[in-house]
Amino acid sequence: MKTLWQHCHVASMAQGTYSIIEDAAIVTSAGHIEWIGPRQQLPALIADRTVDLGGAWVTPGLIDCHTHAVFGGNRSGEFEQRLQGVSYAEIAAQGGGIASTVRATRAASEDQLFASARQRVQALMHDGVTTLEIKSGYGLDLVSERKLLKVIRRLGEELPLTVRSTCLAAHALPPEYKDRADDYISHICDEMLPALAAEGLVDAVDAFCEYLAFSPAQVERVFIKARELGLPVKLHAEQLSSLAGSSLAARYQALSADHLEFMTEDDAIAMAAAGTVAVLLPGAFYFLRETQLPPMDALRKHGVKIAIASDLNPGTSPALSLRLMLNMACTLFRMTPEEALAGVTLHAATALGLGDSHGSLEVGKVADFVAWQIERPADLAYWLGGDLPKRVVRLGHEISN
Amino acid sequence: MKTLWQHCHVASMAQGTYSIIEDAAIVTSAGHIEWIGPRQQLPALIADRTVDLGGAWVTPGLIDCHTHAVFGGNRSGEFEQRLQGVSYAEIAAQGGGIASTVRATRAASEDQLFASARQRVQALMHDGVTTLEIKSGYGLDLVSERKLLKVIRRLGEELPLTVRSTCLAAHALPPEYKDRADDYISHICDEMLPALAAEGLVDAVDAFCEYLAFSPAQVERVFIKARELGLPVKLHAEQLSSLAGSSLAARYQALSADHLEFMTEDDAIAMAAAGTVAVLLPGAFYFLRETQLPPMDALRKHGVKIAIASDLNPGTSPALSLRLMLNMACTLFRMTPEEALAGVTLHAATALGLGDSHGSLEVGKVADFVAWQIERPADLAYWLGGDLPKRVVRLGHEISN
Ligand SMILES: [Zn+2]
Ligand SMILES: [Zn+2]
Repeated sequence: MKTLWQHCHVASMAQGTYSIIEDAAIVTSAGHIEWIGPRQQLPALIADRTVDLGGAWVTPGLIDCHTHAVFGGNRSGEFEQRLQGVSYAEIAAQGGGIASTVRATRAASEDQLFASARQRVQALMHDGVTTLEIKSGYGLDLVSERKLLKVIRRLGEELPLTVRSTCLAAHALPPEYKDRADDYISHICDEMLPALAAEGLVDAVDAFCEYLAFSPAQVERVFIKARELGLPVKLHAEQLSSLAGSSLAARYQALSADHLEFMTEDDAIAMAAAGTVAVLLPGAFYFLRETQLPPMDALRKHGVKIAIASDLNPGTSPALSLRLMLNMACTLFRMTPEEALAGVTLHAATALGLGDSHGSLEVGKVADFVAWQIERPADLAYWLGGDLPKRVVRLGHEISN
Repeated sequence: MKTLWQHCHVASMAQGTYSIIEDAAIVTSAGHIEWIGPRQQLPALIADRTVDLGGAWVTPGLIDCHTHAVFGGNRSGEFEQRLQGVSYAEIAAQGGGIASTVRATRAASEDQLFASARQRVQALMHDGVTTLEIKSGYGLDLVSERKLLKVIRRLGEELPLTVRSTCLAAHALPPEYKDRADDYISHICDEMLPALAAEGLVDAVDAFCEYLAFSPAQVERVFIKARELGLPVKLHAEQLSSLAGSSLAARYQALSADHLEFMTEDDAIAMAAAGTVAVLLPGAFYFLRETQLPPMDALRKHGVKIAIASDLNPGTSPALSLRLMLNMACTLFRMTPEEALAGVTLHAATALGLGDSHGSLEVGKVADFVAWQIERPADLAYWLGGDLPKRVVRLGHEISN
C-alpha cells in the first residue's frame, strides 16, 4: 500500500540537523519512505490513500537507546525512606539498592516481568518512541538473564515498536560471587554470553565500568568475548569517576559509551575516531543531583555524535518520558533543542547500530515518524512533561496512542 | 445516585498526611463523599452501583493552585535562541520576554486563547488534576484582562474540572505605562479591579512583588482595594530577592504567598500566624536553574502549610504535568513524597480558599478522586514523567481521561 502524507512540515534530521522541509509531502510504501520533499516537487503518482496531517510538524519516531525497562518491584519505598532521612548505609543493611531489584527480578515470573515492563514501555511509546533499547542486568545468573532477555524479545514482538536487546550481565556483582568479581566475569564469558548469544537473544553486549562495579581489565575480558561472538559492545563509563572506560570502549569500536560526566578530552578524541556515540543520560544526572556536567565542549569540538536516553531504571532514573529528557538535556546540559532532537533520532539510531535504516526521514529508511501539533520543532524540548497532541506512524501505519 | 467504590486502598490526605485506609470503601452521593473507611466497617446500604477499583490506590484529585495557563503564542523560539547563545539583552531588544507574550495575548481572540489553553489544561487533567487555579496577567489592560478572565471562566464551564480565577493585572508594567508604575497601579485599583470584580470574573487578586515588577508599597495598594472589594489576595513573593512581600501578604491574610526562595524566617513566622500557605514552584526553580532553595526547615519549624504547583507559564515554567512537580519537589527541594502529595491536595485547596470542601477524602467533601494503579503512594512522586494508569472521578462520576 502506497500512502501520501501531506499538509505538514518536516524536520527530517538528515545528517543530525533539523533539515527542515516546509509544506512537505511523504510517500510511504511497504513500510519504507519512497519519496520525501517539498510538496510542490512531488512527482505524479497513484497513492492508495492520502492522509492530511493538519499542519503538523513531522519528526522521525523517537529512539530511546539506553533503558533498563524490565525489572521486578520498584524502589519508590527507598526513594521515600531517603527523603525521610534514612541513610544509604541503613538502606543497604536492609538489603536495599540494586540488590533488592535483583531479588525481586529473580523472584518474578516471565509474565509478571512482561506485564510491568509493558506498562512502562507503553508510557515511553505514548511520548512518540518507536524504537527502544532494553538491557538485561538485574538477573545476574544465566537463568534470570535469559528470562529478562526473553521478556525483551517478547516486548518487541507484541508491541508496535522496534526493540533492541542488550545483555548487561556485567552490571553488578551477584551476591553468590561476593568478593569474586573475576570469577563472575569468567562465568559471563564462558557460560552466559555464549549460551544467550546462541539462543539469538542478544543484539549487543554492555558492562558497567566503575570503581563500584567492574574494572577496565574485567570489562575488556567481556569485550573480547563479545567480539569473538560477533556482537557489538557498549559501555556504562565515567559516570562517577574517570577510568578511561570510554577510551577502552572506543578501542573495541563500541556502538556507544554512556553517562560520561567524568570523561576526558582524550576519551572524546578516541570516541570520535572510532565513531562511538556518546549517550548522555540527563535523567540520572538530575535524579542523583549530580554536579559534574558531561564535557559538552570537548564532545562538540571533536565531533563526537551525542545521543540522549532515558536510562529508565528503578534506582537512578525512573523516567517514563523521553521528551522530558530533551528538556533536561537542554536545561541541565545546555544542549540546543536541535542537538537534543538529533540525540533521540539519528544519533540514537547510530548508538544502536541502526543508523542506516532508522533515525532520519530519508528515502529508503523505515517509515517511523511522529506528526506533532506544535508551533516549531523546539517545542519538543521546551514543554516540561505532559502530553503533546500527536499521531504516531510506524512502518507506514498509524498506531493508536 | 449512590455509588460504592471498593477494592482499593486510600490515602485520604486528611490533616495533610497520608492517613491511609487499607482495603477501603467509599460511598459517594450527589457529588459528595457520604462515607469512607475500612470496607469491613461499611454500614448496610443500598447503592445504585458498585465499582471495583482493582486494588488501586485512591488519592484526592490533584489540585494545581498556581498557573498562568491562558496565554497567546509560546516562547519555545526564545528558549532555542538562548541555548544557541543569544543573550537576554538581544532577546529583549527583539521585543522578547514577557512583552512578547503580552503582545501575542492581546492580539489573540478569545476563541484562540481558549483553544490553546484547553489543550494545556487537558494535559494537566491527564495527570489527575481535578481543580485548577488560573491567573490573568498577560493582558495588562482592562479589555485584555477581561478577555483572559472570561477564557478562564469558560474553561471551568466546558471542561470537567473546578477552575478558580485570579486577577493578576499587577503582573508586569504594560508598555503604555513605561516609567509610570504608580499610575498603572492606580488604573488597576480605580478601574480594572472594580469592573472585573463586578462582572463576577475574579475569585482572588494576585500581584508580582519583585524589584523588576512592583514594590511592596505598590502591592499594598492593590491589596487594600481587593479587601475593599471583598476579594482574597495572593502574592508572587521572594522569588529573586528578599522584599518581605510574604510578610506583607500575611498581614493581609493572603491565601498564599508563592515562590519564596528568598523568604526569611520572620516571613515564615508571619505566614504561619496568618494561615497563609507557602506555594512552592519547583518547575520555575528548575527551568531557571536557580540555586537558592526555599527555606524548608523554617517552613516546617513554624508549621507553614506547603503547597506545590506547576506555575505553568510560557517564560519560566512551561510545565504540563503536576505529577512531575511532585518529583521535583522531592528531588530538588528534598520534600518527602507525603509532604509533596499534601502540597497538591489539601494544602493546595487551602491556598485556593477551598480547604473545607476539597483536597482530602472525608465525609462531606466533594467526591473528586483518582484511583492509581501503583504499588504505594510514594510512586506518584517517584516516577519521572510519563503517564501512570489511573481512573479519575469528579463529583462522583468517572471522567474519561
Ligand atoms: Zn544504564
Ligand atoms: Zn506565577
